[in-house]
Amino acid sequence: MMVPESHPRYKSLLNRDRIVEAFESGVLAKGGMIAHGRGETFDYLIGESTTDAALNSIKVSAALLVLAENPVISVNGNSVALAKDEFVELAKELNGKIEVNLFYRTTEREEKIKDVFESDINGGIVLLGIDNADKQIPGIDHLRGKVSESGIYTSDVVLVPLEDGDRAEALVKMGKTVIAIDLNPLSRTARKSTISIIDELTRCIPLITEYVREYKKMDRAELLKIVENYDNEENLRNILNLISKRLTSVDLI
Amino acid sequence: MMVPESHPRYKSLLNRDRIVEAFESGVLAKGGMIAHGRGETFDYLIGESTTDAALNSIKVSAALLVLAENPVISVNGNSVALAKDEFVELAKELNGKIEVNLFYRTTEREEKIKDVFESDINGGIVLLGIDNADKQIPGIDHLRGKVSESGIYTSDVVLVPLEDGDRAEALVKMGKTVIAIDLNPLSRTARKSTISIIDELTRCIPLITEYVREYKKMDRAELLKIVENYDNEENLRNILNLISKRLTSVDLI
Repeated sequence: MMVPESHPRYKSLLNRDRIVEAFESGVLAKGGMIAHGRGETFDYLIGESTTDAALNSIKVSAALLVLAENPVISVNGNSVALAKDEFVELAKELNGKIEVNLFYRTTEREEKIKDVFESDINGGIVLLGIDNADKQIPGIDHLRGKVSESGIYTSDVVLVPLEDGDRAEALVKMGKTVIAIDLNPLSRTARKSTISIIDELTRCIPLITEYVREYKKMDRAELLKIVENYDNEENLRNILNLISKRLTSVDLI
Repeated sequence: MMVPESHPRYKSLLNRDRIVEAFESGVLAKGGMIAHGRGETFDYLIGESTTDAALNSIKVSAALLVLAENPVISVNGNSVALAKDEFVELAKELNGKIEVNLFYRTTEREEKIKDVFESDINGGIVLLGIDNADKQIPGIDHLRGKVSESGIYTSDVVLVPLEDGDRAEALVKMGKTVIAIDLNPLSRTARKSTISIIDELTRCIPLITEYVREYKKMDRAELLKIVENYDNEENLRNILNLISKRLTSVDLI
């Protein structure tokens, strides 16, 4: 579908097209289309823009990624469908590590996603989690819990966009700093992660990248100052209050 | 997927399975899967139960359907996927008329939906809108605006579950009483329809049927009493206030 750029919901409709396309090409499972719809509603409720609360989480996340020794970006079907190029840009500013983690893991989908990243692997991206996922996240069932040794398994900071709650919680239990990106402020992922960015992927990943670039010029003490006093529960409350206020002040006629 | 009945979100997961199944059988378009996800979020926000405000709309709708001279139930891919049997039960208590209206109308999907209703047609259901959709809703583009003469075109009360906003608004402009079922209290459908039931289909259709059965024993004056003083804007405000309250009082930890 061709959507004119002037359409007030242009970006939202463009993302919907990307999701349908990824489903047709085999990158995305059927459940991924329904999940995208759930996200669309939350994005609509926060106003389809990056809130002040989200921007704060983005800054803290950028500082944590710069401070990390082995930061890893975890991607799944939906995140690849929506923001593959944006993840590659961010990974290039870090150690280049992107790890594939599929909720419905099939060899066919693994291969499709590998194809999507093919040109980036030559450009410096280290794609993990497919041929080398021989470690296991404790407490997560076999296929969903597969991770690579040099990637998520030994990471200290993991960026998990559109993660499922079980897995996010298990990564926290492993002692990792988990940065979630999730439009649902009530999800278990949002509540259990260390930092939750309640924002849409294609909007927030370029912002994280921008702050990572800026923060790489700072020293450790300055970075720790950005990170200190972050309260994820307060972050989620701020988003919920914002949605709540929007819902009761909207013009219905 | 087999979901145990004891699962706290059993009905929601069962509906998700129905949606995927309908997509696989060709009843549902890809856009219908994303739309279902949007609805899931709103259902989650209202608490996955019929609110007092929704129950009030349901009662008023049942009275209007009993009072109607030519009530018609309009169905699309999503509503057939989720609640075909429930619609048939309701139609049997009325004049039996169900009219198919597809956002993405193709001959193939029309045939699939006709197949789904095949046994009901012998059981007294009048399936309209496929072979006999030779009238047009003014202002709605050709395929989406197709309606049948004996059905929606000459109806006085139309039940439109999961309708798109344009079409709901055009039906109101034609002078019809439009009863929408939509989980999004902010949608144009919800705002522009005469009555908006903000509830999930498989929960509210059996309730409408129950009240229709009860109200058929009442006289016209009693029915008019149920209908009078209904205020749809107030109805939507009540739902928005409820969601808003839930969002700010939720336990995050």
